[in-house]
Amino acid sequence: MTFVEAIAAKRDSETLDREQIAVFVRGASDGSLPMEQLSAMLMAICCRGMDSRETSWLTDEMLHSGEVWDLAADRPDAVDKHSTGGVGDTVSLILAPLLAAVGVPVAMMAGRGLGHSQGTLDKLDAIPGWDSHRNRPETLALIDSCGAAIIAQTDDVAPADRTLYALRDITATVPSLPLIVGSIMSKKLALGAGTLILDVKWGSGAFRKTQAEARELAVALRAVALDAGVRCEALITDMNQPLGAALGTACEVREALDVLGGGGGQQLREATLRLCRETMVLRGWQAAEADTALTKALGDGTALAAWERMVVAHGGDPNPELLALPRATIEVEAGREGVVAACDGEDLGRVAAEVGAGRRRVDEELDHGAGLLIHSRIGDRVEAGQPLATLLLGGREVDGERLTRRIRKAFEIDDEPVDPPVLILGTADDVLC
Amino acid sequence: MTFVEAIAAKRDSETLDREQIAVFVRGASDGSLPMEQLSAMLMAICCRGMDSRETSWLTDEMLHSGEVWDLAADRPDAVDKHSTGGVGDTVSLILAPLLAAVGVPVAMMAGRGLGHSQGTLDKLDAIPGWDSHRNRPETLALIDSCGAAIIAQTDDVAPADRTLYALRDITATVPSLPLIVGSIMSKKLALGAGTLILDVKWGSGAFRKTQAEARELAVALRAVALDAGVRCEALITDMNQPLGAALGTACEVREALDVLGGGGGQQLREATLRLCRETMVLRGWQAAEADTALTKALGDGTALAAWERMVVAHGGDPNPELLALPRATIEVEAGREGVVAACDGEDLGRVAAEVGAGRRRVDEELDHGAGLLIHSRIGDRVEAGQPLATLLLGGREVDGERLTRRIRKAFEIDDEPVDPPVLILGTADDVLC
Repeated sequence: MTFVEAIAAKRDSETLDREQIAVFVRGASDGSLPMEQLSAMLMAICCRGMDSRETSWLTDEMLHSGEVWDLAADRPDAVDKHSTGGVGDTVSLILAPLLAAVGVPVAMMAGRGLGHSQGTLDKLDAIPGWDSHRNRPETLALIDSCGAAIIAQTDDVAPADRTLYALRDITATVPSLPLIVGSIMSKKLALGAGTLILDVKWGSGAFRKTQAEARELAVALRAVALDAGVRCEALITDMNQPLGAALGTACEVREALDVLGGGGGQQLREATLRLCRETMVLRGWQAAEADTALTKALGDGTALAAWERMVVAHGGDPNPELLALPRATIEVEAGREGVVAACDGEDLGRVAAEVGAGRRRVDEELDHGAGLLIHSRIGDRVEAGQPLATLLLGGREVDGERLTRRIRKAFEIDDEPVDPPVLILGTADDVLC
Repeated sequence: MTFVEAIAAKRDSETLDREQIAVFVRGASDGSLPMEQLSAMLMAICCRGMDSRETSWLTDEMLHSGEVWDLAADRPDAVDKHSTGGVGDTVSLILAPLLAAVGVPVAMMAGRGLGHSQGTLDKLDAIPGWDSHRNRPETLALIDSCGAAIIAQTDDVAPADRTLYALRDITATVPSLPLIVGSIMSKKLALGAGTLILDVKWGSGAFRKTQAEARELAVALRAVALDAGVRCEALITDMNQPLGAALGTACEVREALDVLGGGGGQQLREATLRLCRETMVLRGWQAAEADTALTKALGDGTALAAWERMVVAHGGDPNPELLALPRATIEVEAGREGVVAACDGEDLGRVAAEVGAGRRRVDEELDHGAGLLIHSRIGDRVEAGQPLATLLLGGREVDGERLTRRIRKAFEIDDEPVDPPVLILGTADDVLC
């Protein structure tokens, strides 16, 4: 009856000891505990919380439930980046080759998307030939050959997380802070880069809807990383509207290429540069030198060259002409003049998913030509009839009129001037947020 | 995903609506919800609670998950009695024939014991020939022929409770007030007597350890009963020591006969009389008249005669000589002189179970000769060597010396005088408790 007592302890807001947490995680990975007890413990954790020590233990037990790569042992300079997920978040595709271009090696384990946000792995799949399935020696070789490895999370990494994640989904325990931290950090720490930059999103299109929630998550994630001896910084950034202009797979790769070539949307560029700078500071750079090197790499073609090296090293063809194009497009125009007051990323993400850029079910195939381009952002003045967005249609049969209405509804247009949201609130340590 | 949203609502301390509760209970009775979701909802209810309306809905949905007997429709005068469970609690065996003797018909659905407390059904099984398995028409016939039916809960009554109870046991959600209320009251309301007397125990040998917890339960149980249109009173009584002197099956029947014949232990008699009086008051009697009638029935043999009629009507042989006797006994004496300061009913109940008077597993056979007799109560002065208890041995192989030590340890003997605990704290409405 020991585990029932552990559930009872958490139910009564007590602190679990390491052994109780170990039994819980082992129960999830080897099936030694019934799903009923795992579910009850998840809800007790969700209702009562965990302190930072319990959260570190949970993370550590989860990471040791499977393969531990410990990349830092062989490539101590390599950095990892994680975003808590958002819409139009193309940062990883830019950050990896850009850091590689300035001499900071990158190793990221990426996932697929579900629901309204696309996964980095899905976007890379839009590149013909790209293969993300790499084992540890292959990943080390990728780091050495092109300076940036973006690989698929394998089933052998943190298997306890897969069981717990699936359970959390059906037991309404997804929003629990310690469970989120355990899920994210167990995978990051299993990969084991020595430096980690975190992009914690807040806002209507993020999983954390308020600044306070995002800050709480940023602090908790960073605490676990530091506890594990990882150099880590967490930025809190805006997700009240899509970060980039493109929502989809091939169209996001194209937008990444724009930024890597020195152009692209201002917010996407700014967020990426700031994340790169913080990463470089963690690696010992001066902030000003980092900014100079990054700007230079975007301006002189070295970032784009690093992208091409990265694509080739991963088996892909870097020719942008080969990226899928939409079969047709629908322009969505503003119904009235005014100022864009809201731009619901979550709903726009769902529209993009519906035309083929995302999955409505885990096993759904993506349509790389499909997606959505955003032309107006919060604070922009628009005239009636001015394009707000372009819907990129792929092979999927859709009701264009209904989707047009949904897109128009996602843009709220007011008469009064609106301040655009602050893109970067600060780091986990900043008092302001 | 509707039920996930219901779990999330309870997780966030929201009030569930009737439909959400109905889906939950249906899920438990027909298997339409996965155990993972039932478990998570149980823990969310355990952590966040339910208001009185939710608790009434839960109870109502649980009672309608199975057969609804609605005895009040045919026998509006019949009363039911429920105890939240304790050690040496022989009240039901006395109360049923005693009320029958004064003209108040009784109908009780009783259960079996597990752990440290014996069930009424187990005690009746000690009477040769007694058969508790009766359907509704047979129960009505029992009420008519002898004035008191004590029958076994059937599988068809509140089946949702069986699933939820088994789940609560392994998910550490047993102590949740609304879940306790739903479990108890769904079965009581399914039987459907028009009048219900509740004996809510508090103390070391009860499931509610404090007076406040017991009062909270008493108030909640009564509220659901009143909400369902049942006349109901709840008494809060002491379970810091065994109520009667006998712990077992046949020995408790013998003690019931002692009380029915006008003798027996003072506390057991007093508690039973008070519960009978409150029941009769609910049925329209004046308290003083009730007391007179009850005392008379115990003194003039009518209560004993009602017992005999009840036993015969249930197929049993009322000859007390046929009740099982112990094969051997062990006297347990006080190791020192002093005053009994504590008498741990839970531990003594476990000792009684170990020698054969209770079940250590659900499928274990009882030994009707086995049990324990208590000779000293809290506040009693004892001399060294004076008998504290007599262990009644049945056929089971036991370590007498170890059990003797355990019994001696259950009695705490101090030098200072100790006040005996107050037997009856009052009703659910009394401000004192």
